[in-house]
Amino acid sequence: MIMSRIEAPRDGDTAPAESPLIEALLAGLPAGAVLTDPDVTASYAHDMASFCPAGAPAAVVLPRTVEQVQHVLRTATALRVPVVPQGARTGLSGGANASEGCVVLSLTKMDRILEISPVDRIAVVEPGVVNAVLSRAVEEHGLYYPPDPSSWETCTIGGNIGTASGGLCCVKYGVTAEYVLGLDVVLADGRLMSTGRRTAKGVAGYDLTRLFVGSEGSLGIVVRAVLGLRPKPPRQLVLAAEFATAADACDAVCSIMAGGHVPSLLEMMDRTTVKAVNDFARMGLPESTEALLLAAFDTPEPAADLAAVGALCEAAGATGVVVADDAAESELLLQARRMSLVALEAVKGTTMIDDVCVPRSKLGAMLEGVERIAAKYDLTIGLCAHAGDGNTHPTVCFDALDEDESRRARESFDEIMALGLELGGTITGEHGVGVLKKEWLARELGPVGLEMQRAVKDVFDPLGILNPGKLF
Amino acid sequence: MIMSRIEAPRDGDTAPAESPLIEALLAGLPAGAVLTDPDVTASYAHDMASFCPAGAPAAVVLPRTVEQVQHVLRTATALRVPVVPQGARTGLSGGANASEGCVVLSLTKMDRILEISPVDRIAVVEPGVVNAVLSRAVEEHGLYYPPDPSSWETCTIGGNIGTASGGLCCVKYGVTAEYVLGLDVVLADGRLMSTGRRTAKGVAGYDLTRLFVGSEGSLGIVVRAVLGLRPKPPRQLVLAAEFATAADACDAVCSIMAGGHVPSLLEMMDRTTVKAVNDFARMGLPESTEALLLAAFDTPEPAADLAAVGALCEAAGATGVVVADDAAESELLLQARRMSLVALEAVKGTTMIDDVCVPRSKLGAMLEGVERIAAKYDLTIGLCAHAGDGNTHPTVCFDALDEDESRRARESFDEIMALGLELGGTITGEHGVGVLKKEWLARELGPVGLEMQRAVKDVFDPLGILNPGKLF
Repeated sequence: MIMSRIEAPRDGDTAPAESPLIEALLAGLPAGAVLTDPDVTASYAHDMASFCPAGAPAAVVLPRTVEQVQHVLRTATALRVPVVPQGARTGLSGGANASEGCVVLSLTKMDRILEISPVDRIAVVEPGVVNAVLSRAVEEHGLYYPPDPSSWETCTIGGNIGTASGGLCCVKYGVTAEYVLGLDVVLADGRLMSTGRRTAKGVAGYDLTRLFVGSEGSLGIVVRAVLGLRPKPPRQLVLAAEFATAADACDAVCSIMAGGHVPSLLEMMDRTTVKAVNDFARMGLPESTEALLLAAFDTPEPAADLAAVGALCEAAGATGVVVADDAAESELLLQARRMSLVALEAVKGTTMIDDVCVPRSKLGAMLEGVERIAAKYDLTIGLCAHAGDGNTHPTVCFDALDEDESRRARESFDEIMALGLELGGTITGEHGVGVLKKEWLARELGPVGLEMQRAVKDVFDPLGILNPGKLF
Repeated sequence: MIMSRIEAPRDGDTAPAESPLIEALLAGLPAGAVLTDPDVTASYAHDMASFCPAGAPAAVVLPRTVEQVQHVLRTATALRVPVVPQGARTGLSGGANASEGCVVLSLTKMDRILEISPVDRIAVVEPGVVNAVLSRAVEEHGLYYPPDPSSWETCTIGGNIGTASGGLCCVKYGVTAEYVLGLDVVLADGRLMSTGRRTAKGVAGYDLTRLFVGSEGSLGIVVRAVLGLRPKPPRQLVLAAEFATAADACDAVCSIMAGGHVPSLLEMMDRTTVKAVNDFARMGLPESTEALLLAAFDTPEPAADLAAVGALCEAAGATGVVVADDAAESELLLQARRMSLVALEAVKGTTMIDDVCVPRSKLGAMLEGVERIAAKYDLTIGLCAHAGDGNTHPTVCFDALDEDESRRARESFDEIMALGLELGGTITGEHGVGVLKKEWLARELGPVGLEMQRAVKDVFDPLGILNPGKLF
C-alpha cells in the first residue's frame, strides 16, 4: 500500500481524479463515498464462495441516498462501466464478486429502517439493513420477519433480496421472496422505478417485484423494500432424533410431512457434520449416529405435535428421541445446526457448499447418491439439510493446496448438481447461481427458458453493465 | 342462426374450411375442437365484467393436449391472428373478452389432475381443472388448496393463475400466486417453456413463474401447473359482530390485526350488502347494523382466539357479537358473504364491482370516501370487503337502461380507484386489470413502470397476438 493514498478522504473534499470514471463518480458523491485505494477495493472483490474468479474493482462506492445510487448508475451507463452491487458479501455463489474494472456499489451505508407498522404488518427498509437488526426491531413491535439465513447476524436485506435467501424457517414460513411486497429500484440508466405495493394484496400488472427478487443485481439496484411481517410466534421447542441410517431419517421426514405436521423447522445433520460441529465448538452432540434430525414447533402448545413427531421418528427407526427442556436448550441445538457450514470448513480448510433442493420424497435418494459420490471421489462430504424442504447442503471438504483433491472436489460438486436435476430438483434452493453455477443454470432451464431469461435481462440492462458474468 | 351451420361436427370430420385460419387450425385439431358457428362463438365473447367491449371471435378452439395448444399458437403466429385464452369466464375485468377476429383458446377441456403428492405437498394440474374439483380432490389426501375466489365452484385453475385470484382465505393463506411453484407455458410462437420447480424451494434464475401469474394470458398460455398444497386445517369457526358505524368495524379490524391474531378470514359487509343478501336469499342477517364483521379461526382450539377477537370487537364499539354454534352455522354465514356480489347485482339489475386494496390502516378512510362518493353521485354502492387484507369491493348498483345512472356509475367507479391510489392502495387486489382498468394501471404504475412492463410484454409477445388490448 502506498502511504500517500491511505489518507482518509473527508466529506466535501475532492479526491484526486484518477480517471474519467472516478471524476464522474465524484461529481455526484462525497469523496468519502468513493474508495479507490487498490488495497481497500481489493477487500471488496469476493463474497464467501470458493472457486469463483473475481476482478479488481476500479472503485468502491458507498452511497447513502437514492439520488447517489442514481448518479452511480447514470455514470456507469454513460461510461459503459460494469456495476456490481454488494451487501455484506456473505453470499455462497460468487454473485457479489467484482468484475475487472467495475464499480462495486456497496449498499451497506443505506441501512435505515424507515417504517414499521403493526397494523399493516409491514416494514419499509433500505437495502443495507442487517437481517438481525431488522428482526430485532420488528420483534419489539410484536412482529416477526421470518427469513433467517445462517449469516443473519451480518447479511443485509438487500443481499437477501438479491439471492432470494432462505434459512431454517422456510419449511413453515417460506423464503425471502414471500416477504417482499414492493421495491424501489434504480434501473441501469439511473431512472427510479417502483414495483409492487404496500398492501396485503395486489395484482396490478406483471409481478416485477418477484422478478427482481433473486435476480442477483443483474436487473437493477434495490434501494428500498416494503417487507411483509407476521405476528411474533411463541419461542420454538426443539426435538432431536438420532438415526442409525440416513435413509431412516429421510423416512421420518417424509412421514412427518405426509402426516400434515407443520414444524417451524425440520433440519438434518449427518455424522460428518455432527462431528465437525463437536470438534469446532464442543457442542456435545451424539456422534454415534448416522443422522441427527431436529424438528421444532412454535405453536402455543407444542407438546402434542412434538409427541406425534417423536412417535413418527421412532416408527421410522430412530434410536433415540429427546425433546429440549426449554427454549434455551432449543436455541443451543439450533446454534449447532447454524454453525455446521463453518464447522465443516474447519475440517480441511476449504469447502464447496452445494445447495441442491429435491422434492422431499427424493431426499433419501439424494443422500444415498451423495454418499456414493463421496466414495467415488474419495472425499469427505458433510451433509446438512433443510430436510423438510428437501433442500440439501452437501459440503465438500478439501485442502485447497492439494491440486488433485481440489479437482476432485470440483468434479464431485458438479456431479451432486447433476444428481439433483435427475431427481427432479433444482441446482439451487436458496444460495443463487452467481458465478459458481451459471453453466448449470443453463442446464436446468433448457434452451428456451435460457433464451427468455436472457431476453428479460436485455430489457432491463441493454448495455450489459449490471453485474455482468453472473447467472448467464 | 343458419341451420346448416349448427350440425355438430364430429371428431375426425373435416369441417368446411371457411378461411385460411380455420383450415390451418383444423390441420392440427380435431374438427370437434374448432367451433365456428357465430351463435356459438358469440357465447364465448365475454367474461362477467360490465362495461367492457368485446369483439366477435373468428373461432373458438377447445384443445385437449399441449401439442394442440402449440399448434394453435404456431398457427396464430404464422397468420398474425390474436389469441384470447379463456377459462370459465368468471372474471370481473374483461380480461377474457374476445377481440375482433381472434381465436378464443378455451382451456376448459384440459381438465386433468395429473398428480397429488401428500409427501411433496404438491398437485400437478392442467389449466382447465375447476377450483372446487381440485380442492375436493386434495382434501381426500388430507391436503388443502387455499385459494377460494367466490366463483370457486366454476372457475378454473388456469383462470385463477391468469388473474392471480384471491378469495376469503387470503388474510391467512395468501393469494393464488403463493401456490404456483412451476408452470409449463406455450409461448406465442408455439414453443414450450418450463418455469419454476416442483420442489419446496428454488432460486435458479429469474422467477418467470410469478411473472406469468396474473399476466392475464398476455405472455403465454399456461398448459400445466405445479401447485403447492398445505395440510388440511380443522374446519373454521366463525364469529359475527355487528357495528353501529363502519368506522367502528374498521377500528376492530385494525386492533385484531395489530393484536397479532391470525384469523382464517376477516370479512366485512355493509348494511346495503346485508340487506341485498337477505332480499336475495332470506338469510336472516341483522339489517339494523351499519357493518357486519365476520372473523374465523381454523386452529385446533379456536375458542381463545374467538373470545379475544370478540372482546376487541366490543372494545371497538360492536353492538353485538355472536359465535357460530358449529361448522354448519359458520358455513351459512360464509355463504351469505360469498353471495354478496350476486345479491348486489339483483338490487338494480347491473353492478360494477370495484376491487381496490388499501393498507388496512386506511380501511376506515376508504369506506368513508366510498360513502361520500355514493352520496355525490346519488348511487347505491354496496360494500363488502376482505377487510383483514384491506381489499374492498365497492359495488355500484345501477340500472343499465338508465343512461344517466350508467354514466354516474362509471364515474363513481373511477373516483373509487382514484381514492384507493390516494390512500396508498392499488386499483386491483385480486380481480386483475383486463379491459376495465387499463387506463388506471398506467396511472398506478407511472411512466417508467409502464414502459418496463410493456417491454417485458414485447419479449414474450413480439407480434402482439396474445390477448391484445388487455392490461395496457
